[in-house]
Amino acid sequence: MDFHVHILGSNSAIADHGRHPTSQVVSISNHYMLVDCGEGTQERLKEFKVKWFRIDHIFISHLHGDHYYGLIGLLTTYNLLKRTQPLTIYSPLLLKDIIALQLKASQTQLNYELKFIDTKDDGQHLLLENEQLEVHSFPLYHKIPTTGFLFKQKEGERRLLVEKVEGLPIERTDYALLKKGIDITDKEGNRINAEAVTVAGSSPKTYAFCSDTTYNKSLVSHITDADLLYHEATFLENDRERAEETKHSTALQAAQIAKQSNVKKLLIGHFSSRYPDLSDLLKEAQSVFTNTALAEEGEVFEV
Amino acid sequence: MDFHVHILGSNSAIADHGRHPTSQVVSISNHYMLVDCGEGTQERLKEFKVKWFRIDHIFISHLHGDHYYGLIGLLTTYNLLKRTQPLTIYSPLLLKDIIALQLKASQTQLNYELKFIDTKDDGQHLLLENEQLEVHSFPLYHKIPTTGFLFKQKEGERRLLVEKVEGLPIERTDYALLKKGIDITDKEGNRINAEAVTVAGSSPKTYAFCSDTTYNKSLVSHITDADLLYHEATFLENDRERAEETKHSTALQAAQIAKQSNVKKLLIGHFSSRYPDLSDLLKEAQSVFTNTALAEEGEVFEV
Repeated sequence: MDFHVHILGSNSAIADHGRHPTSQVVSISNHYMLVDCGEGTQERLKEFKVKWFRIDHIFISHLHGDHYYGLIGLLTTYNLLKRTQPLTIYSPLLLKDIIALQLKASQTQLNYELKFIDTKDDGQHLLLENEQLEVHSFPLYHKIPTTGFLFKQKEGERRLLVEKVEGLPIERTDYALLKKGIDITDKEGNRINAEAVTVAGSSPKTYAFCSDTTYNKSLVSHITDADLLYHEATFLENDRERAEETKHSTALQAAQIAKQSNVKKLLIGHFSSRYPDLSDLLKEAQSVFTNTALAEEGEVFEV
Repeated sequence: MDFHVHILGSNSAIADHGRHPTSQVVSISNHYMLVDCGEGTQERLKEFKVKWFRIDHIFISHLHGDHYYGLIGLLTTYNLLKRTQPLTIYSPLLLKDIIALQLKASQTQLNYELKFIDTKDDGQHLLLENEQLEVHSFPLYHKIPTTGFLFKQKEGERRLLVEKVEGLPIERTDYALLKKGIDITDKEGNRINAEAVTVAGSSPKTYAFCSDTTYNKSLVSHITDADLLYHEATFLENDRERAEETKHSTALQAAQIAKQSNVKKLLIGHFSSRYPDLSDLLKEAQSVFTNTALAEEGEVFEV
């Protein structure tokens, strides 16, 4: 089943070296979700031709500006372009007041329903669930309340074994039941065991997003065995002191978390503007965790 | 004396066709002033190599997002880059609350003094005055309270006539007095008439900025004889109905205001995204007022 992460920005704090602040689109089947929304995100969405009108859920990790200053612009652009379908934002509660005040200042009444769900950094919480996916928040360790997000695909439907169902006296509508693992009775009254005529669907994948955080082993329990982990790597080990002071991680620390969590692949991002060239960050992470990539703008990663 | 307008963005509402929302830098001698600050303005300031750390005054015409969503990002970027010199913002009062709430959310204490001056749309008001310039606000006619801004250079110093002062028994410090038009007495007790040994300095120039407004003749009294007028021209006459509905002007109307105001030159901007090509807007304005130019991003106009 289709599960992708589209990087819109992965610089820290200030846009620089052609890099922009944090934002990603996570898509699972037909569900598009925006994760963080730094200034200029609406421009990146258009630049990278993301189907941005399909986004119905926006997750904001914390209220440092480089993770949400682009939100109000996106919300009002949706409005100008006559969006009507509802939109839900998951974030620390104060964001609701900020957006409300800005809409009041411009005397704007949105054409669509905007709902806010408060995130809490006191443990893991289920934020969203539907037939295809679950999204959970979990605590990160930063200067202000911050959460990561875990995107979990649900188990895919079983696949029919064509050679076993061909010629059976059943209706096409029975196929859907069998794919769900439900036994049926055919037109001649014989019981058909779903497991005998299907095989398990694709195994469900997991993506963990850790925006801004100091190195903390408590993360591991939330992200163990993830197929893909995004972990911030703002600094090199050379600048470890600065990382600790600002509650950020080094590339080495991100890789250590990836290794301890037994994830399959690591993406690093939230790069400090002090590094025009990112190759040393990549090398540092790969020295501990080989399957690491840079979360560079415009890149799309399959989970 | 140096007096320039640097266009950072002049699209309306949404960034499109490589054009960005409203922002300009007005510089008079060593004074740099930012006028409106749409999303992404900090990126434009860097892209166009504006001396953006010299900006000490920011004028916001109204609280529609395309005129101020980039402000909070600029303010916090200044802070991250250790700005210490004070900054004054002139805007409708609610902006102070919006910025305060956003700083609270990120638990940010600015390193520099940030002062807000409330603008009122009930007449012309002097907002700023120093030795070189004055800035006044005046009412525009839009959907929410909106003001234009008038940047007036003060009369320049008189210029010394070198051939007349050479050889006179006076000190160099006397030159400064003469240039200010003050008569002096030389070392031999003779009176020296300032007007006799100097000529008038350059005549002071005026720039009028009219961001978002419907066509309204009341503007004329505030901007008469301006050397340069920026007037929004969101639509073509073809879309006159839409202009009226949204309280914007057409290119023709902007030109009519320019003509009635007897300004020397007109800049049009705040272009609707419905026009990928701006040449028809320019032609329409020039049909009424020949000395018109497009306020295109990156362009610098001498007042």
